[in-house]
Amino acid sequence: MGTGKISPLAPATIAELPPVEGVRLSAASAGVRYAGRTDVLLAVLDKGTTVAGTLTRSKCPSAPIEWCKAKLGAGKARALVANAGNANAFTGEKGIAAVKRTAELAAEAVGCKPGEVFIASTGVIGEPLDAEVIGRVLRGATLAARPENWKAAARAIMTTDTFPKVATATAKLGKTEVRVNGIAKGSGMIAPDMATMLAFVFTDAPVAAPVLRALVRQEVVDTFNAVTVDGDTSTSDTLLVFATGAAAARGAPRIKGTGDKNAEEFRRALHAVLADLSEQIARDGEGARKLVRITVKGAVSKPSARKIALSIANSPLVKTAIAGEDANWGRVVMAVGKAGERADRDRLSIYFGDIRVAAGGARDPSYDEKKVSAYMKRDVIDLTVDLRLGRGTDRVLTCDLTKEYVEINGDYRT
Amino acid sequence: MGTGKISPLAPATIAELPPVEGVRLSAASAGVRYAGRTDVLLAVLDKGTTVAGTLTRSKCPSAPIEWCKAKLGAGKARALVANAGNANAFTGEKGIAAVKRTAELAAEAVGCKPGEVFIASTGVIGEPLDAEVIGRVLRGATLAARPENWKAAARAIMTTDTFPKVATATAKLGKTEVRVNGIAKGSGMIAPDMATMLAFVFTDAPVAAPVLRALVRQEVVDTFNAVTVDGDTSTSDTLLVFATGAAAARGAPRIKGTGDKNAEEFRRALHAVLADLSEQIARDGEGARKLVRITVKGAVSKPSARKIALSIANSPLVKTAIAGEDANWGRVVMAVGKAGERADRDRLSIYFGDIRVAAGGARDPSYDEKKVSAYMKRDVIDLTVDLRLGRGTDRVLTCDLTKEYVEINGDYRT
Repeated sequence: MGTGKISPLAPATIAELPPVEGVRLSAASAGVRYAGRTDVLLAVLDKGTTVAGTLTRSKCPSAPIEWCKAKLGAGKARALVANAGNANAFTGEKGIAAVKRTAELAAEAVGCKPGEVFIASTGVIGEPLDAEVIGRVLRGATLAARPENWKAAARAIMTTDTFPKVATATAKLGKTEVRVNGIAKGSGMIAPDMATMLAFVFTDAPVAAPVLRALVRQEVVDTFNAVTVDGDTSTSDTLLVFATGAAAARGAPRIKGTGDKNAEEFRRALHAVLADLSEQIARDGEGARKLVRITVKGAVSKPSARKIALSIANSPLVKTAIAGEDANWGRVVMAVGKAGERADRDRLSIYFGDIRVAAGGARDPSYDEKKVSAYMKRDVIDLTVDLRLGRGTDRVLTCDLTKEYVEINGDYRT
Repeated sequence: MGTGKISPLAPATIAELPPVEGVRLSAASAGVRYAGRTDVLLAVLDKGTTVAGTLTRSKCPSAPIEWCKAKLGAGKARALVANAGNANAFTGEKGIAAVKRTAELAAEAVGCKPGEVFIASTGVIGEPLDAEVIGRVLRGATLAARPENWKAAARAIMTTDTFPKVATATAKLGKTEVRVNGIAKGSGMIAPDMATMLAFVFTDAPVAAPVLRALVRQEVVDTFNAVTVDGDTSTSDTLLVFATGAAAARGAPRIKGTGDKNAEEFRRALHAVLADLSEQIARDGEGARKLVRITVKGAVSKPSARKIALSIANSPLVKTAIAGEDANWGRVVMAVGKAGERADRDRLSIYFGDIRVAAGGARDPSYDEKKVSAYMKRDVIDLTVDLRLGRGTDRVLTCDLTKEYVEINGDYRT
């Protein structure tokens, strides 16, 4: 379970977020797997809450993923139950029964229908999950739910994360300010489609479910789906966005279409929270000591730029070089070459920060190794590849690959 | 440059191979990058030698790759020059000039045309390579070339390899025995298309160039292209197979078509050498402590099985778990799920060795954790996934991902 050290890339302080009207949160200790810590998050949502989400594309999804997939269609939510320690993935019929039972117990505690309860689980795969263990804490958690428990909520869903991840933003709908809050957990098995394991976003903005769905689908592309730690897509990746609509009573206009002026305002706030959370996941990549921002420009298209950027971001050789503070752009060339996308070796330029290290198919004769070495000691590394073929640009976030990653993952289960 | 330790998976002894008629080898110390070791291999080949090969599919190939690609069409070879320490990749016009110059100098030394000289380079990317440094040793190397220098030849092309890789086999063509010898170097930046950095195979069998080409293309699929260390495809991957035809003088029939009975005999020997060398590369994966053989069966097709097997083999989470001697089949499920190929979670079985750990979408209730733990301590781990969907079967080789991999690659260049 990791080294107990907080990532050097963690934010200096983790703020307690302001409330989101219509959302009450609670963190409980059920002892699903861990002792002496909280491991169950309950969010109680006011009537009228809409929900949209993105789930893993894994062909072997967890039981909670299948549950959420089935319930997202209706777009209505009254509660969220998330637990850490056991992913309830590859648990067969028992796993499906456990999700159903958890939803029933939560519905009973909260006072809603089981189909309005969303479930997410993270942790070990393949261990049966006992719904009663979670169920036991749900009544107490409902009573204890408060509008201000954001940090505690984020803490309850951590696994190998070294810090709780929270983010907040506001938007002005008409004359009314609405809030968007989010919490997330990373930190290994992180790759696009989806890029995180669990992220939950809450807003008091009144957004119709189909609009929320469209906005989430669009905004996830350059946020969660542009983050990779190890290229490993989880069986449990879940992003859920809940909109209570409570701000309507304060005069916030209802967002009915993605083209609305108010939709744009809300989109900006949603994007900010998703971008913030997904960057925090890269910053908490298992064993990470450096955040790496990889920009590919001049590609033939954005998807082509994305594919090349991910090829670089997932290359163990690039990632270990960055861990070693080595501006090994030769490995960047390798990763561009293996992406299979259009690239012309002899037009390619590579930059670390503002320093051009390679251009026109060869090392930049003017580059100063000392300056690059100094740059590589930074916490945040900007790596840019300019293909000079077209206008396709994209950016992905990743982290370096250190011995600690191997350590953390070499004895996670034992 | 690594830890200086020999891989625990290395063969107990490395044999000196018997000669291949028509091939003389020489290893020289040019000081391309390393001091106190050989770093140039020269193979001098008799007149009439045919050649075929497979080269990296990287979109940013090295200068020697472009040279070989241009010369393979003619299918004739008289010499091979390979150096370690500098890959002559991403070196622009200078790199192309350096290859040409090396070929000219070798042709002069050996007495042939530059177009009959094949070149391969391995090592750092992006550093200009001085052809004169290599050129200086070529005349001496030609004079020193001997039929028995196989181990020295294999040693001269090592980079982070911890042991020289040699393999040999024989075939009976009519009543005449022919020999196939091979040497190779690994050990990081290893992934299919091609799976090795450099491998050179030599035979005295008389094989027409087009037949040799077809056989190499077929036999590489389940050998070099089924090995992955880190999913990183090199800019320099090269497999060249040289057939001197010298055995014809001893009565060996010329192989004129891939359908010949003699072609089958030769194919068997070629396959044995390619399989042996490619397994040695996995055994010498950077930092490797375990050889992992991943078999996927019951897939909808062989390509589908290959894709799933590679997804497992390239998963950092699977590889670190194996390094930690943890039979974490949950991560195997994850890797199956992320491959994007057809899979039914509820039909899937997973085996470590003969021990079934998961079946029918859940943990196998009868499996004994102690037995599995004991199995995981072995040097060679067999991991089998049965999808129970169709008849597609495939196998790939990989190794575990250890802290030593990160160590080796975190300070390779600095």
